[in-house]
Amino acid sequence: MNGEIGLDRLSLNQATVKRLGLDEAVELCVRHEIPAIGLWRDRVAEAGLAPAAAAVQAAGLRVSSLCRGGFFTVADPDGRRTALADNLAALEEAAELGTGTLVLVCGGLPPGQRDLGLARRMIEDAIGALVPAALRCGVRLGIEALHPMFCADRCVISSLGEAVDLALLFPADAVGVVVDTYHVWWDARLADEIARAGRRIVGFQVCDWVLPLPADTLLGRGHLGDGCIDFGAIAAAVVAAGYSGDVEVEIFNAEVWDAPPDQTAATVRERFANALGGGGARRLPG
Amino acid sequence: MNGEIGLDRLSLNQATVKRLGLDEAVELCVRHEIPAIGLWRDRVAEAGLAPAAAAVQAAGLRVSSLCRGGFFTVADPDGRRTALADNLAALEEAAELGTGTLVLVCGGLPPGQRDLGLARRMIEDAIGALVPAALRCGVRLGIEALHPMFCADRCVISSLGEAVDLALLFPADAVGVVVDTYHVWWDARLADEIARAGRRIVGFQVCDWVLPLPADTLLGRGHLGDGCIDFGAIAAAVVAAGYSGDVEVEIFNAEVWDAPPDQTAATVRERFANALGGGGARRLPG
Repeated sequence: MNGEIGLDRLSLNQATVKRLGLDEAVELCVRHEIPAIGLWRDRVAEAGLAPAAAAVQAAGLRVSSLCRGGFFTVADPDGRRTALADNLAALEEAAELGTGTLVLVCGGLPPGQRDLGLARRMIEDAIGALVPAALRCGVRLGIEALHPMFCADRCVISSLGEAVDLALLFPADAVGVVVDTYHVWWDARLADEIARAGRRIVGFQVCDWVLPLPADTLLGRGHLGDGCIDFGAIAAAVVAAGYSGDVEVEIFNAEVWDAPPDQTAATVRERFANALGGGGARRLPG
Repeated sequence: MNGEIGLDRLSLNQATVKRLGLDEAVELCVRHEIPAIGLWRDRVAEAGLAPAAAAVQAAGLRVSSLCRGGFFTVADPDGRRTALADNLAALEEAAELGTGTLVLVCGGLPPGQRDLGLARRMIEDAIGALVPAALRCGVRLGIEALHPMFCADRCVISSLGEAVDLALLFPADAVGVVVDTYHVWWDARLADEIARAGRRIVGFQVCDWVLPLPADTLLGRGHLGDGCIDFGAIAAAVVAAGYSGDVEVEIFNAEVWDAPPDQTAATVRERFANALGGGGARRLPG
């Protein structure tokens, strides 16, 4: 059926089991027959890059993405050089880990600034500077639109349309977009923008929008089905656009982090099957 | 200079001094030479409709808007009838109070629903049903796009573009849009959408985006200048679109509510003059 995504495309993003080290997260995936993992640089660094790459390979896991690069909106030249160097390192790490996608959280307004246009130009410039390295590494920079509530402090790219506009300035082999349901579900233009993104979609992340928002709005995400996002419709649009890669469950939520990881993994599998395995009957509006 | 808005167009929205009754808010405006006021239905009802209308008229204040109608996304027929009746009453109150704008907060997802398209159709239907009364009353329904973080529970119209699309389905004498900086500042398409809205803009509300967001995200708004919104650029775009009405300062913030009202009113005046009186040099991106 249209839009169905099987468990053979499920990926567990490490952020969902934030308390686990890399080896533990890898073992958890194996134990729960989750065939792919989304890695985080801090946990990779902790394990060591080569051992981390060896561990996921030995376990037979695909690496759906590396999180994350970005944070380009730095005003001073030294800070910008540091950010670019860090992103170059992230591209090389992604290549070594065997993933084709480096997820970008592009950065909010520079401190004391109110000029969104300036921040967006900084991001465009930085991505342009990284394109040669991305092509050399065979890793695509995945521009992730973040929810507009993070515009000031984390990412001034606030809608998928904006991410697509930016990606289209660069070669398709170097720059794409990441669709994260939590950040874009509210958008009346979502169906059109997913279609326009087409093969530029280099990552698809899912988690639910749960109310009330917690005091730390970074942590308001829920297991699929605990909130109000219409996953079937969004997944159908992403599949129709041509995306055939893994789908990451990425949940930032203090209660989920405190739960036993095996319980979390089992819930992730079950909810994924329910929400994406056959729920694509409804079409997105627009 | 382009985009300047003088203090002769300042309006104090009652929500900024939430603890005051209508008469006290009216007296505050007079004391601080604020020539207009944005009224709330609960405070009007408390004072009585006719006495409230008489009080603002006697004080020589313009009424920039009445807040608020909306909450149309009700699934059961009885609930929908109740919502329409309440909005009809609000239109008549607005006419009696002498304002041409009823601000709409259109409603979030109906309980248990995930279908944004359905919610949006409910809103379109309800507005259509109210158009004859709006024309008869000489009051325009002002569709306010709310920030996407309120999409699930308060308003599924999450961008100005969406509000404009909806308004354009109806006669200009009956339906327009309200631009509230807090809700739309993040939008890369904002300049284009304000221009497209043109004479459909029937209200302009300002307050700042302040970090960190409080536990109750409804209350995260700040005095102009305390956050990161580029008021000069947005105001210039609104003026260029042809809006010549009053500009409401509407701040939901527990600390502002606890401050002495005279201090709040003085700060509102001072910040308004700073942010809108001559800050329109920069253009919005896009």
